[in-house]
Amino acid sequence: MKVARNIAEVRQWIKQLRQQHSQAGGEATVGLVPTMGFLHDGHASLMRRAKQTSDIVVISIFVNPIQFGPNEDFERYPRDEQRDLALAEREGVDIVFMPAVEDMYPTPTKTHVTVAELTDTLCGASRPGHFDGVSTVVTKLFNIVKPDAAFFGAKDAQQVAVIKQMVIDLNMDIDIVACPIVREADGLALSSRNVYLSAEERSQALVLSRSLEMVKQRMMEQPALTAGDVRNMLRTEIGTSSIAIIDYAEIMTFPQLESLEDDVVLRELSSEVIVALAVKFGKTRLIDNTIFEPSLTPQTVVHA
Amino acid sequence: MKVARNIAEVRQWIKQLRQQHSQAGGEATVGLVPTMGFLHDGHASLMRRAKQTSDIVVISIFVNPIQFGPNEDFERYPRDEQRDLALAEREGVDIVFMPAVEDMYPTPTKTHVTVAELTDTLCGASRPGHFDGVSTVVTKLFNIVKPDAAFFGAKDAQQVAVIKQMVIDLNMDIDIVACPIVREADGLALSSRNVYLSAEERSQALVLSRSLEMVKQRMMEQPALTAGDVRNMLRTEIGTSSIAIIDYAEIMTFPQLESLEDDVVLRELSSEVIVALAVKFGKTRLIDNTIFEPSLTPQTVVHA
Repeated sequence: MKVARNIAEVRQWIKQLRQQHSQAGGEATVGLVPTMGFLHDGHASLMRRAKQTSDIVVISIFVNPIQFGPNEDFERYPRDEQRDLALAEREGVDIVFMPAVEDMYPTPTKTHVTVAELTDTLCGASRPGHFDGVSTVVTKLFNIVKPDAAFFGAKDAQQVAVIKQMVIDLNMDIDIVACPIVREADGLALSSRNVYLSAEERSQALVLSRSLEMVKQRMMEQPALTAGDVRNMLRTEIGTSSIAIIDYAEIMTFPQLESLEDDVVLRELSSEVIVALAVKFGKTRLIDNTIFEPSLTPQTVVHA
Repeated sequence: MKVARNIAEVRQWIKQLRQQHSQAGGEATVGLVPTMGFLHDGHASLMRRAKQTSDIVVISIFVNPIQFGPNEDFERYPRDEQRDLALAEREGVDIVFMPAVEDMYPTPTKTHVTVAELTDTLCGASRPGHFDGVSTVVTKLFNIVKPDAAFFGAKDAQQVAVIKQMVIDLNMDIDIVACPIVREADGLALSSRNVYLSAEERSQALVLSRSLEMVKQRMMEQPALTAGDVRNMLRTEIGTSSIAIIDYAEIMTFPQLESLEDDVVLRELSSEVIVALAVKFGKTRLIDNTIFEPSLTPQTVVHA
């Protein structure tokens, strides 16, 4: 496994590995897993998926300052280079790209890639500028690594929707692959930020996955379930946690992220929907979601 | 010469030509000349320059709707496909990419590439949104063609500055080559929009190149020439045309496009400067410019 500390180096390593593959007869495909490090099994699942379809797997580890707001956790975002490298090595990654901030932004960037509409809601509304920072850095990483495919976790569902839209709009010749959320045994979605949680907060945070499960369960039992019913259910369930502070608890179409009126009967929708949560426990803001197609949800036969 | 009418086709032709080159032993380089068509000798000079350094020369012909304002000349922008193809053929172009608007924008783009600061002045101030449209479509063309180098005319000097900044900021692995302005024998800078001019307007439009020449002449004669002197000179000279309406007549640093105070002595500057004009003659807005390094301007010895 190669570790590239700057842009010139990663380009050189990729070129070299591509040449080795082409000498072996084929044209090599490159899979990129962009991460902010402090890797967990969710990231590992992306690497495994990348390995299945790409000859060369590159992961980037870069805590991107321009996607953090002024009062967010850029400085204290958890970092552990040695553990990250060990995990990447174990997963058979070919190249780890860990640039310094000064290498990615030698001067403050004047250029931004912005995706409108999709970024007006959910995390985009709570974190102004966040998705501009994401789409800009992802564009930079794409231009540096030139991958054939890039792998993102479905936990950041809005990020997936934004990146897919960007790739279509800008004709980027890259396959965007969203991989399922990986959860702890008790349901908590893996996140690098889980390390911030106290034991009590971690325990209360289970309300997120529990309320998502409840929505899916209710979808099976109640054919006439509306978007408003879901919103009420989420607020009630999350309200059972004494410390949870809801940022949003929403149901929208996916991937368009269009809002649904309260009286919309979900089963009558033809598109997928996302139930998306952002909730603070103490100082830590966690997100979670589930995406499903209501019209395809099987119905539970309730025996009278 | 291949003519590709859509994105899939141009990708296919480029891939095929690249393969032919790699079978011949080398890795092919691709040069892109993005144009809006109605080609003239200024465009031809870009193609010739591209041919000198690229194995495969691709030109795009696309009148990009999103870089035109609502009251601008998108609809009436001159088009002549047959003449354009003949010129491209004559210049030895390998592939002409002429997509339809529906192919480039199957749905209105949600994604924009914006370059801040550099776009606040000159044409950016007069044409809000223009440069967002330019940097967005150029990004799309870059992602479709994947050129090693792209060639732009220096007449659109601000465009060159914006594209160069975008390429640096987004780590696009593309060499941006600016080629000198091509002029008619009488000094008029070539432009597809010159066709709009009446004989009288065309004659009066010579004031543009004449006033730029005058600035360079004065630079040689007056070591203490200030930015304010240049502004006065431009306004006076352009004012000699009875129909000229100045949009801007400016002197700024290049390529940063930072404004210069009136009392700045040009020879004391360490950077290049641009003298940039945008002037309306009748309904037609023309631009012209000259870029030079004041500290390197030779001085004329005036014999007493």
